[in-house]
Amino acid sequence: MSVFTIVGAGMMGSALSPPLVDRGHEVRLVGTHLDGEIIESLKSNGTHPKLRYALDAGVKPFFLDEIERAMHGAQTIILGVNSKGIHWAAEAIAPFVESDIPIAMITKGLEWTGTELQVFPDTFRDALPRAVREKVHPVGITGPCIAGELVRRSETCVVFAGRDTKVCASLAASMRTDYYHVWTSPDVVAHEACAALKNAFAMGIAFPAGIHEARGGQPGSIALHNFESAVFAEAARETATLLRIMGGDPNVVIGLSGVGDLDVTTNGGRTGRFGRWLGTGLTVEQAIEKMEGATLECLDVLEVVRSALPALEASGTVEPAELPLLRHLFEVALDGQPVNMPFDRFFGGNT
Amino acid sequence: MSVFTIVGAGMMGSALSPPLVDRGHEVRLVGTHLDGEIIESLKSNGTHPKLRYALDAGVKPFFLDEIERAMHGAQTIILGVNSKGIHWAAEAIAPFVESDIPIAMITKGLEWTGTELQVFPDTFRDALPRAVREKVHPVGITGPCIAGELVRRSETCVVFAGRDTKVCASLAASMRTDYYHVWTSPDVVAHEACAALKNAFAMGIAFPAGIHEARGGQPGSIALHNFESAVFAEAARETATLLRIMGGDPNVVIGLSGVGDLDVTTNGGRTGRFGRWLGTGLTVEQAIEKMEGATLECLDVLEVVRSALPALEASGTVEPAELPLLRHLFEVALDGQPVNMPFDRFFGGNT
Repeated sequence: MSVFTIVGAGMMGSALSPPLVDRGHEVRLVGTHLDGEIIESLKSNGTHPKLRYALDAGVKPFFLDEIERAMHGAQTIILGVNSKGIHWAAEAIAPFVESDIPIAMITKGLEWTGTELQVFPDTFRDALPRAVREKVHPVGITGPCIAGELVRRSETCVVFAGRDTKVCASLAASMRTDYYHVWTSPDVVAHEACAALKNAFAMGIAFPAGIHEARGGQPGSIALHNFESAVFAEAARETATLLRIMGGDPNVVIGLSGVGDLDVTTNGGRTGRFGRWLGTGLTVEQAIEKMEGATLECLDVLEVVRSALPALEASGTVEPAELPLLRHLFEVALDGQPVNMPFDRFFGGNT
Repeated sequence: MSVFTIVGAGMMGSALSPPLVDRGHEVRLVGTHLDGEIIESLKSNGTHPKLRYALDAGVKPFFLDEIERAMHGAQTIILGVNSKGIHWAAEAIAPFVESDIPIAMITKGLEWTGTELQVFPDTFRDALPRAVREKVHPVGITGPCIAGELVRRSETCVVFAGRDTKVCASLAASMRTDYYHVWTSPDVVAHEACAALKNAFAMGIAFPAGIHEARGGQPGSIALHNFESAVFAEAARETATLLRIMGGDPNVVIGLSGVGDLDVTTNGGRTGRFGRWLGTGLTVEQAIEKMEGATLECLDVLEVVRSALPALEASGTVEPAELPLLRHLFEVALDGQPVNMPFDRFFGGNT
């Protein structure tokens, strides 16, 4: 039995509570300044309003101004803020990172440092004060995990990826249950890059569903599935290309964090809904409006990767003919151009 | 302009006619002894009863006893019989394979020769008379392709894989259109093995949809998608393992024939429906009955791979701990055991 403090009371942070409770841990859930209503609701009736589900009675909710109490005696910190909160979180958590406390992260994203595309566990570590930084090797939690399913204790398979293999192994050992299956990997770059990029690619995989809808097509086995699965395949290939560029093992694509997470995101995620709206022909602004304030990590990741490309091309790390799908996603989601999938440039070009 | 004779008038064989017609080729469609009603309907009103779609007026239907006329002057043969018809087809076609006529195949499956797992283009070639055999390098057509979409000229991306790269390239050049995008590869083993295995794995990927349904769950974003995508990821990994065993490039999994075809098959295929029925708890016999006579290649492929395993394990080619998903598919679909997914043995085991 150990004390876990989760910072960020959004859907995914909160959904981690069942395996922790089932393993007998004390779970403290700290809302950020965005999570006031969630904590309010949890304190008053135990129900998580976004998950629309009652968390276990043992889970202790804390407002942000109660963070000191929530951190007192914490033996593991789990970071569950949204992607825009990564630097804020490093600052907020730094005072409590005194020993070599394990930190796990479900916050996903990439950052361009000016010289490299960095995964968030590294971004977070770099943002900590130097003295603290040396002791911390954040563990990224990746793999296909819809929060609403995990909170209901549905079968879920994930990877704990971090440079310190001992931390990964002990964290995995303390969180595994008969429905929460955990693998470990030292390749934090590959697993976290997959997790961040899947949001961008899932958006593109959903374009054909929107195109089909706009043409008056019905859902069913005859839609634009051939289109969709060709984009899925190219997304897997371009993810492998980006892992190579970032120094991760491209084979990680063939697994939970790669095609597993890509598959679940196209089936159940908000990114897919956003991509479908774009596919119907809505402008980016209209599609964003339809999402009613839902976080759209896909746009952040696209912005970051696009800002990195000139330097990566100048150094010869990326060829201009590479990443045709990703470049088209820039055009559609960042520049407002219509969907016009460059199929013949996929897979290295077909002529 | 060239003459293409398609043998087998099922859904996929017939669905190849639009790109051929659009490229100005003469298309002759020969029904097997199973396709009598299809040819009857095509001759009387031009409509394909299984596709529920009118083929282009230029497509010429032939009964099996008219095959000689259909083959007269044919410059390319496309084999579209079902998997059980592979040996029959070699016998039926042999008399017409006189020169080095290109042969393309959409028939998918594996055969265990007693020493190796063989892909169907090789099985077909071996079944031809020796004199003919030397001249033929069949081209397998693989990738995510739902027939009902291709016949409607929806965007479709495929691979023409065959040992003779010139034949692949010239066939691709003669069939590409602005909606039928074709890549080529000399790795016929990898691409065809993916195409055959995807039916077995798609069945397993569909189990959780059936389990969810049997529990009274509704379709939607909270179902058993985490379960499903974990199985998808392990399916991709086990496909890569089988490609290695068979001498193909495991990286082919990251592409159209691998995860692309696996994705489309889980979205739109009859194999998925069969897997879902098994997931609801129906016996194999009951699930087969629900499929109302639809071809279930998944069962054939599972039988073949299971028959190969003892020899492959004896030679040390396959370890007993490998392929846990596939072995569970044997248990469920061949032995009638209930679904009990061995998650913790996936991905090389998690402890």
